[in-house]
Amino acid sequence: MALIKKPVTGMRDILPSEMQLRDYCIGVIKKTYAEFGFTSIETPVVESLANLNSKQGGENEKLIFKVMKRGEKLNLETAKEENDLTDSGLRYDLTVPLVRFYANHANELPSPFKALQMGNVFRADRPQKGRYRQFMQCDIDILGEPSNLAEIELILATTTTLGRLGFKDFKIRINDRRMLKAMAAYSGFAEEEYDNVFITLDKMDKIGIDGVAEELVKQGYPQENVDKYLELFREAEGKKNLEAIKVIADKIGDFLDEDTKNNLNEIISSVDASKTAQFEMEFDPTLVRGMSYYTGTIFEIAMTQYGGSCGGGGRYDKMVGKFLGQDTPACGFSIGFERIIMIMMDEGFKIPGENDKVAFLIEKGIKGERLTEIIAEAQKERAAGKKVLTVRMAKNKKFQKQQLSEEGYEDIRDFYEKPLN
Amino acid sequence: MALIKKPVTGMRDILPSEMQLRDYCIGVIKKTYAEFGFTSIETPVVESLANLNSKQGGENEKLIFKVMKRGEKLNLETAKEENDLTDSGLRYDLTVPLVRFYANHANELPSPFKALQMGNVFRADRPQKGRYRQFMQCDIDILGEPSNLAEIELILATTTTLGRLGFKDFKIRINDRRMLKAMAAYSGFAEEEYDNVFITLDKMDKIGIDGVAEELVKQGYPQENVDKYLELFREAEGKKNLEAIKVIADKIGDFLDEDTKNNLNEIISSVDASKTAQFEMEFDPTLVRGMSYYTGTIFEIAMTQYGGSCGGGGRYDKMVGKFLGQDTPACGFSIGFERIIMIMMDEGFKIPGENDKVAFLIEKGIKGERLTEIIAEAQKERAAGKKVLTVRMAKNKKFQKQQLSEEGYEDIRDFYEKPLN
Repeated sequence: MALIKKPVTGMRDILPSEMQLRDYCIGVIKKTYAEFGFTSIETPVVESLANLNSKQGGENEKLIFKVMKRGEKLNLETAKEENDLTDSGLRYDLTVPLVRFYANHANELPSPFKALQMGNVFRADRPQKGRYRQFMQCDIDILGEPSNLAEIELILATTTTLGRLGFKDFKIRINDRRMLKAMAAYSGFAEEEYDNVFITLDKMDKIGIDGVAEELVKQGYPQENVDKYLELFREAEGKKNLEAIKVIADKIGDFLDEDTKNNLNEIISSVDASKTAQFEMEFDPTLVRGMSYYTGTIFEIAMTQYGGSCGGGGRYDKMVGKFLGQDTPACGFSIGFERIIMIMMDEGFKIPGENDKVAFLIEKGIKGERLTEIIAEAQKERAAGKKVLTVRMAKNKKFQKQQLSEEGYEDIRDFYEKPLN
Repeated sequence: MALIKKPVTGMRDILPSEMQLRDYCIGVIKKTYAEFGFTSIETPVVESLANLNSKQGGENEKLIFKVMKRGEKLNLETAKEENDLTDSGLRYDLTVPLVRFYANHANELPSPFKALQMGNVFRADRPQKGRYRQFMQCDIDILGEPSNLAEIELILATTTTLGRLGFKDFKIRINDRRMLKAMAAYSGFAEEEYDNVFITLDKMDKIGIDGVAEELVKQGYPQENVDKYLELFREAEGKKNLEAIKVIADKIGDFLDEDTKNNLNEIISSVDASKTAQFEMEFDPTLVRGMSYYTGTIFEIAMTQYGGSCGGGGRYDKMVGKFLGQDTPACGFSIGFERIIMIMMDEGFKIPGENDKVAFLIEKGIKGERLTEIIAEAQKERAAGKKVLTVRMAKNKKFQKQQLSEEGYEDIRDFYEKPLN
C-alpha cells in the first residue's frame, strides 16, 4: 500500500506554533483549577459500547468510532451483526467516562470529589471548517456536593481561568432545568412535551420571541398555552438577574419551589461578590442546554464578540446512580478548549515570557573538541534559564536568520571553527 | 445493556495521586526540552492502516486496534474481508505519525526540525502487570540534521530531563548499527544473516557470552565465524568507551569506516564534557535495539537498579524517504514515560512545592451571605497563591480532617454560620 501523508479524514495535525499556545493554556488551566482544589484524572480513550450507548450521550451516540474486536473474539465468517465485530469505541465526551470512573473508584476518592479532565474525544461528525473528529475537551466536575457551593466554585474556577487567559467582557448565562419545567408547567404544557417545547425555545436568540411563538403554534400547541408561556419571557425582558427571577417566580407561584429560586439567586450573588475576572452573570430563562441528563442548574459561557458559546455545564444528579446504583449529586463545567484556542490564535495572543530564546548557528563541519566547546556554552546558557537552539549554519545564512527570527529567536550567535576575537 | 464500571480490558483509569505526579513530570519534560529548542507537535491517535502497516512498526504491526469504517463505507452484508470493514487504526507508536507529519508539513517547518511529542499509543498486547494497552510515549526527534550534533543534543536533553526528575547513576548505553554490521561482516556472517545474529547477540546480558556462542552454533553458524565474532567482545571486555571502540576498530580494520568510529567517539566525549545529570556514557557493542529502521547510532537508558531499559532511540535516516520520496536525516530519543512514573511512585517521590494547600471546612447549611463571605475569603487566599479546597463539614469531622491531611492538606480551617471570635 502507498503511504499517506494526510491525517485520516476529519482529523488534523497540530503544528508547533499552535501547540505552544495549547501547552501554555493547558498550563494555566491546570494551575488555576488546582488552586480551586481540583485534581486531574485520566480515563482510557476507548470505552465499552455498553457505556457509550447508555443514552447519556444524546445525539453523540450516533457519532461513535467503533473499535474492532481482536483475535479469537473476531470471526469475520460467522459475524452477522455489528455486535459480533465490536464491543468498544472511542469516547465522544468526558462525562460518561468520568461517571464510570467514579463508580469504579468511589471508595478510593475523597468526598466531594473535584475532578479535572483534559483529554481528546472523538466524534464522527461531518468534517467542516473548525470542527474536527478528534478534539480536546476540558471538564471540571464536582461529585458528592449537593449544595450550590459546587456551582459557585465551578463558575469561579472557570471564569478565573478565562480571565487569566486574557478573556474579558464575557457572560455566564445561567438557568435551572427546574425553572424551565416550572415555566412550562405553569403555561399548561404536558410534561412529555417539555423537551420538545425547549428545543423550540432554544432558538430564541436566532428567531426571536415571535418566531418561537409561531413555531410552537405550528407544532400544534394551543395558542393559549403558547401565549401564557411567552408572556413570562416578555415580562422578564429588560430585567436583570434577581429582578428577572423574581418577576417570573411571582407570576408562576407554586409551580416553582423556593429552593430553585434561592439557588439561582445565591449563585449569582455569590459569584458576583467573589469573582476575579471581568464578566457578568446573566440569568437567562431561555437557556436550555441540549443534554437530557441535566437535573438542576445549567450555565453557559457566552462570548458575543466571538459569536456564541465557549463552554457550559450544569448539574446532573441522576447519572452516577445509573452506574453506581445509588444517586450522587454531580455538577460540571466544560471549557470549549478548541474554541478558546481558535479565538486566541485569531486575536494573535502573545505568550508571556517567550523572550528568552537564543539560537547558536554552528559552522558546517565543526566537530570534535570545538563542537564540544560550543555545546558546553549552550549548556551554560540553558543552566541560566535560556532556551538554546543549536543548529548548523545554512548556506543562505541571511535567510536562515530571517526564519529563526520569525520563530522568535532574536539573539542569534554565529560559531566558527576558530572563535572570532 | 448493563453499564460497566471497569475500563475496557487492558486499559486503566489514572487516579489523582498518580496524575499529579504525571502532570509534574510532563511539566518538567516540556520545560526542559523547550530549553533545548524542541517544539511540541500533536498528531491524531487514529492513523491510516496503510501507514501503520508500512513495515516500520515491526512486531507492533500485529498489535493494532482497528477502527471500523462508518456510514456508507461500511456494509456488513457485502463485507468479505477486514479491508472492507476498516482502513484506520490506533497508532502503536509516535514515530510513524511523526514521519507522516513531517512529510505532510515539511514546507512549513524549520530545518532542522526538533519535535517533542507526548501522547498515548495503543497496543493490543496480552494484558499483564505494569503493561497496559494504552500508554503514554514521550519522544524527541531531530529531522534534517545529518551530523552527530543531533545525537549529542538528544542525549543531553534527555539526561538533563532525567536528572531534574531526580534520577542519577544511570547509564546511556551507545552503539552504532554500522559497528554491529562491521563486526558481523569481519566475522564472516552473510549480510542476510545479520538481523538473526543480532537477535541472539541481544541476549548477551541474559545468557552470557558462552550462551550466545552456544546458541549461534546451534543455529548452524560455522564455529569459526562464531569464535571470531565473540573474540571481539572478549577483547573489549573490561575496557571503556574510546578504549573499547579502539580495540574493536583496530581488530576489524577496513570493515569499519572511520566515520562510524569518530561518530561514537565524538558523541561520548561531547556528552561527557557537557552533561549536567549524574550518569555515564557506555559504549556497548552488544546493544542491538530491535527496530529494523535504525541506520546509525543507537542508544538506550539503562537503570540497572530498576532492572533494565527506561527508554532509547537512534538514527533512522531512511524512514522519511518512504513518505516524502526523498531521504531526510532523522534521529530520535524516547523516554519510557510509564516506567519512569512507576519507578518514581515506587520510590515515593515527593513533588516539590506541594505545601501550599488549605482546606476550608464549611458547616452544612451555610448559604446566602455567609457562604459568599467564606468564598470571598477563599478567593483572597487563592489570589495569594494558595490552593484552597472548599468542602462541607462532614458529620465525622475528625475522620474528614484525617483524610484531608492524607491528601496533603495541613492547613484546615473550620467555618461556622457565625464566625468564631
